[in-house]
Amino acid sequence: MSSDHALRFCQEDIVVSSPEVAQFGANRPCKVALAGFGTVGQSVARILCSRFAQQFCLTHVFNRRIEQKKTDWVPNHVHWTDRFEHVLNSDADVVLELVGGLDPAGEWVSRALAVGKSVVTANKQLIARRGPELMQLARENGAHLLYGASVAGGIPVLQGLQDGLAGDRILKIRGILNGTCNYILTEMERSQATFSDALEQAQAMGFAEADASDDIDGFDARAKLTILSRTAFGINVAIDQVFARSIREVEQVDLSHAHDLGCTIRQISRAELDGETLYAGVQPALVPEASPLARVSGSQNVVVSTGEFGGETIFSGRGAGGDPTAVAVVSDLLWIARQNGLNAETPSAKTPVKDVSGDFTTAHYVRFRVNDRPGIIASLANIFAKYTINIDAVLQRPGYSKSSLPFVITLEPCSAATMSEAMAEIRQLDFHVHPPLDLPILT
Amino acid sequence: MSSDHALRFCQEDIVVSSPEVAQFGANRPCKVALAGFGTVGQSVARILCSRFAQQFCLTHVFNRRIEQKKTDWVPNHVHWTDRFEHVLNSDADVVLELVGGLDPAGEWVSRALAVGKSVVTANKQLIARRGPELMQLARENGAHLLYGASVAGGIPVLQGLQDGLAGDRILKIRGILNGTCNYILTEMERSQATFSDALEQAQAMGFAEADASDDIDGFDARAKLTILSRTAFGINVAIDQVFARSIREVEQVDLSHAHDLGCTIRQISRAELDGETLYAGVQPALVPEASPLARVSGSQNVVVSTGEFGGETIFSGRGAGGDPTAVAVVSDLLWIARQNGLNAETPSAKTPVKDVSGDFTTAHYVRFRVNDRPGIIASLANIFAKYTINIDAVLQRPGYSKSSLPFVITLEPCSAATMSEAMAEIRQLDFHVHPPLDLPILT
Repeated sequence: MSSDHALRFCQEDIVVSSPEVAQFGANRPCKVALAGFGTVGQSVARILCSRFAQQFCLTHVFNRRIEQKKTDWVPNHVHWTDRFEHVLNSDADVVLELVGGLDPAGEWVSRALAVGKSVVTANKQLIARRGPELMQLARENGAHLLYGASVAGGIPVLQGLQDGLAGDRILKIRGILNGTCNYILTEMERSQATFSDALEQAQAMGFAEADASDDIDGFDARAKLTILSRTAFGINVAIDQVFARSIREVEQVDLSHAHDLGCTIRQISRAELDGETLYAGVQPALVPEASPLARVSGSQNVVVSTGEFGGETIFSGRGAGGDPTAVAVVSDLLWIARQNGLNAETPSAKTPVKDVSGDFTTAHYVRFRVNDRPGIIASLANIFAKYTINIDAVLQRPGYSKSSLPFVITLEPCSAATMSEAMAEIRQLDFHVHPPLDLPILT
Repeated sequence: MSSDHALRFCQEDIVVSSPEVAQFGANRPCKVALAGFGTVGQSVARILCSRFAQQFCLTHVFNRRIEQKKTDWVPNHVHWTDRFEHVLNSDADVVLELVGGLDPAGEWVSRALAVGKSVVTANKQLIARRGPELMQLARENGAHLLYGASVAGGIPVLQGLQDGLAGDRILKIRGILNGTCNYILTEMERSQATFSDALEQAQAMGFAEADASDDIDGFDARAKLTILSRTAFGINVAIDQVFARSIREVEQVDLSHAHDLGCTIRQISRAELDGETLYAGVQPALVPEASPLARVSGSQNVVVSTGEFGGETIFSGRGAGGDPTAVAVVSDLLWIARQNGLNAETPSAKTPVKDVSGDFTTAHYVRFRVNDRPGIIASLANIFAKYTINIDAVLQRPGYSKSSLPFVITLEPCSAATMSEAMAEIRQLDFHVHPPLDLPILT
């Protein structure tokens, strides 16, 4: 199937399946070629083909041994190929580079930018090593190079620093940028496992590679910190200027001592501006237990930025994984489509929303304050039963006067409307000293 | 002083003080008129006139009783006025509306948009009530209307949802959007104060207005949740569709019972998509103590968004205050300047960075594992003293064998380079069973 063929199918698809898009005229869907059909690539393809079928037309999927990669849930018009030339010579507007590694991915990105195709990549090593040079190449060819997925996966921290905090002057960045290290250290803390046991467990759970050196020894986080520092401080940091130290030497006895000091141990990536010097490095460090850096557990990531005017801003979430990384890739793609005047409307929800309502279904906490006498619980229980609301627990704390006795009933989830009717009836009872207080219990 | 006069001065300033800007040609500074010179307005003016003097030219400051507002740190060319017509008839590209309230601020915003001026506003009530209509007016007149500062001050959550998570489908938003309520509830929890005492204290500390109803009764958070929901779900939510309940009825006894249930009580803003219905409301609720919603203390804000693909993403930071809100305003202004092809370069740091270094100055934790004998502490102390590193504490836990005894020395802050020299010397000593482990202690 030629790329022309793929294109023709693509346009036919638009005309046939979504006439409303055709109304946009120049606002045609953005044509996207996908390089790398692993975990992230497949997540991206799924999101594009389901949620964003009107905005994007997937033209190519490029991967080595492509025959083994073919799936039936990708539209028929997609051109499967193991030759990058097919992508380069196609009319794709944007190439998604989800192959990873410096070579040949770097070569492919350069060639795509050189022919004026925009590139979205999740490749932290490539951007950390060659980002400024590739950005220059993109500019020279009127293309965009976006890499939001290269740092902290689904957490929009690069956009946050670049757009949302553009008005501030960032002084300090501290983050947990490697989920594997965080998983191992929180697991050592939780279960008193040795480093080796926690690493083995992380490998068994899929949170660590068989060769975990890149994560454990800080090289993965260093690449991310390099990219983050460029964005935060507007300084062209080279990856080799950022030091990386391993977490391998951290032992149980260190976590115990850290605890005695009100701290825990985490692999911390940090960069701090001080006069004419930017300090930057990745290493295990003691952080106070109350710090946001200590409270990110398992494979989560967090970035804490400190600005001269805005103070501390914290971004956290899922820093890795196919779907969160794919969200970052698709978000970058939408940005490029908007810049190029292509269709980048936010799609409406799968089910159109017809109603805005306050009628949440949640568990409830109801606190009463009563003039105590026998039979109170019975009359309340009868009313809740009448509205088929299940009582979960009845709680009472000692030390209050019988004539103004507080107690609490917790209820299993029911709708706010049902709860409201039951409470209206309950408020009529004669033993209340204060009106009862009804609060939802969120989980 | 006429607006022409102000403009002339402005251009002169550019030519005289920053010849490098003139090279940009069409890339001239963006002309900005400031309406409202209160806390936020003054912060914005300070940031514009210091950090962004090359990017923006402040042409007007509009306020009632303007004579009382004049200050000497604003450039001479700025036109001080108490007549909004002066702003409307000027050549300002962008009007910053930092007056607040529905009227006359809404009238001013409409009139500015109608003559094609872009508007940046921090006015949550106006955007919550009239946002969609004003956005339409902006589009019709080729202007932009941005309101990043209207929700959660300096936390870039609207950009995060709109750009960074654009590729996801947001299913749920939960947030703490009112710092006053959060301060009062955390203070009640911390010091066992009554609601009235905590409110009085918040008022004394400047965290609450004399008339605190807007905060306490949920109207402030409701406006923010309305705006946030439009951005997150792409649904045109009207403010009256979102319910608001007061925190006034929460008592100490409720915090005690909540604690017994492993929870705390917070004013929670939440919106959840379920089929064809969007549930939305603001109310006090029990939240688990381990939830990010429970761990935001004092006047901080937090937003937790849950996406179909990306899972939970958390944004937190300073949700109010002059400087953080000003950061959001200036960030929006930079976005508009970029869209309009005006100069929006990120300024370099005040002090240009000449060096990237790993030589952080921090406190240190050093764990030794030794074959115990008298004199070990003395020899370590001598070496630290030689490098003028102060010992903070010596810690030892019971239960370890003398032949492989771990103990810890914590050190007052010193540079990594000094530390490294001292440790090189220490490693030569003959009592080590394992090489010592040196970690920074972050504060």
